[in-house]
Amino acid sequence: MPELRKDPVTDRWVIISEERGKRPLFLFEETPPQKPTICPLCPGNESMTPPEVFAIRRDGSLRDTPGWDLRVVPNKFPALRIEGDLDKEGIGIYDRMNGIGAHEVIIETPNHEEQLFDMEPERLRNVFIAFRERCVDLAKDKRFRYIIVFKNYGRSAGASIDHSHSQLIALPIVPKNVSEEIKGALTHYRLKERCIFCDIVSQEKEEGVRVVLENERFIAISPYASRFPFEIWILPKKHEANFTNHEEYLSYASLSDITSKVLKKYERALRRPPYNFMIHTSPLGASEISYYHWHIEIIPRLTRLAGFEWGTGFYINPTPPEEATSFLKEV
Amino acid sequence: MPELRKDPVTDRWVIISEERGKRPLFLFEETPPQKPTICPLCPGNESMTPPEVFAIRRDGSLRDTPGWDLRVVPNKFPALRIEGDLDKEGIGIYDRMNGIGAHEVIIETPNHEEQLFDMEPERLRNVFIAFRERCVDLAKDKRFRYIIVFKNYGRSAGASIDHSHSQLIALPIVPKNVSEEIKGALTHYRLKERCIFCDIVSQEKEEGVRVVLENERFIAISPYASRFPFEIWILPKKHEANFTNHEEYLSYASLSDITSKVLKKYERALRRPPYNFMIHTSPLGASEISYYHWHIEIIPRLTRLAGFEWGTGFYINPTPPEEATSFLKEV
Repeated sequence: MPELRKDPVTDRWVIISEERGKRPLFLFEETPPQKPTICPLCPGNESMTPPEVFAIRRDGSLRDTPGWDLRVVPNKFPALRIEGDLDKEGIGIYDRMNGIGAHEVIIETPNHEEQLFDMEPERLRNVFIAFRERCVDLAKDKRFRYIIVFKNYGRSAGASIDHSHSQLIALPIVPKNVSEEIKGALTHYRLKERCIFCDIVSQEKEEGVRVVLENERFIAISPYASRFPFEIWILPKKHEANFTNHEEYLSYASLSDITSKVLKKYERALRRPPYNFMIHTSPLGASEISYYHWHIEIIPRLTRLAGFEWGTGFYINPTPPEEATSFLKEV
Repeated sequence: MPELRKDPVTDRWVIISEERGKRPLFLFEETPPQKPTICPLCPGNESMTPPEVFAIRRDGSLRDTPGWDLRVVPNKFPALRIEGDLDKEGIGIYDRMNGIGAHEVIIETPNHEEQLFDMEPERLRNVFIAFRERCVDLAKDKRFRYIIVFKNYGRSAGASIDHSHSQLIALPIVPKNVSEEIKGALTHYRLKERCIFCDIVSQEKEEGVRVVLENERFIAISPYASRFPFEIWILPKKHEANFTNHEEYLSYASLSDITSKVLKKYERALRRPPYNFMIHTSPLGASEISYYHWHIEIIPRLTRLAGFEWGTGFYINPTPPEEATSFLKEV
């Protein structure tokens, strides 16, 4: 059974998950692992994954058979297990609980060669719709406090399978970076009675120099204190605390429009960079709060110079966000 | 001029440093950059670095000439600049200051082929003595609030030069991860009137299952909530807030003994893994506090699966620290 352990100094929770050790582990050699001859995420190989929990199918095809446009399955090597009780306990100064949670894989396309860079906005919508459907379903489980939705594209961004996919993890705790973001936002709200992300949107619109793209409902900016070259945040312009409450959730049309444009800009400016994509959203049961504002953070992994930054939380960024913005606007 | 910018939500400071962009930047190709034909850190090439600020020389040789055992020079591509004023200012909701600081390189050996793995404790002592000398000197500059001492070994841990070296950065702010660690430690102290790291040392000695090594003055443990496989912390057993105050700072004999043994265990267990090494110590001007306890954190970079963890501060570790400990004890 995987275990959740808390660092007693920083309150950082860590999943200790031996099950994941069983999957092919990349040690530190520089060569990528051998390509599997059969892709477990391709149509026809549905039996190679656990049974699907959600799918978008056009032609009335049966569960766990080909005919899907998008498919969500539990991760075959989950970091957390769905069955069981949390059994929280203290051991001296340490705290632990069982590693209860959900870990799912969103297979974004049946086409092995296709990546999000290639997808038209109408197809990308399926991905956001799947994120929402799974979040709404998992939120019913009262053991869970937070759902992280993320994507790693490219080996150096952490992807272990080439077939285009994203992931979600439902957690019985709120991760540290999320609670810090929320705490910071709450501090601002108490001082000003305004959402700090709404303030960011308004100052960015006024200054203009860090706005990469804008459409009816969303704005894409290079954040003022960007940690990484070409980091981009996509925020709804109107205040919304939770991704699943977005006013156009039935279509996610503006969101897929702007996300698709951002990715196409990355492709033109940086070829197809490895990247990490994360949805920052409010914890479960706090979907209407006025001090937090959901958004997407996208980090291209352009440099390998991350050893130090990673450990200290202290970042050195060689590309000012204003320069990244003007470069991305031009391409 | 590099700039320090604060994220208004999380209070995370970032260095925006265009100067560093000028050095050979690895884009995202997987191949390592071409080896330079001349190593700027080798004896005989002293003119390729800025003039030395500290050296350990045996034979009365002159500054910036061969004959040294260890040499400290300013980084040729510094993330921060030493000259100037901070000029703190607010821009709407954002805060910035000039990127004032020091960024130095500790060249640990004159021998291009030698790594810390190869060094006997007597030689490794030079490295700790150099860290201390530079920290004590830089602490006199009242603009600085914190000094980070770190080492990246191996390309995938962020090293851009093969010749064995470590680095230090003196900062006009306390980095976020450090202040969080201190805040956590202070909370514990207020509740219990005890240093939490002293409590960790005492519980680890009692439980035993995560103690990798111990000598007269230090203990090396696999931390209870290890973020990474084979992560190790080295702590002084007696309470000490600041690295530069260590009671045997004239020799650092026990420290180089235990560090050398830990590295040799890594070598035997994991070949020569890329790793990051960081000294966690109290901020400048807080060298006597009773609630914080300096220590070293060493993280072997065994997996590339860090994309997600990196962005969220949420870690999945496939190797329980108890297993890592028993494996390291055996080798």
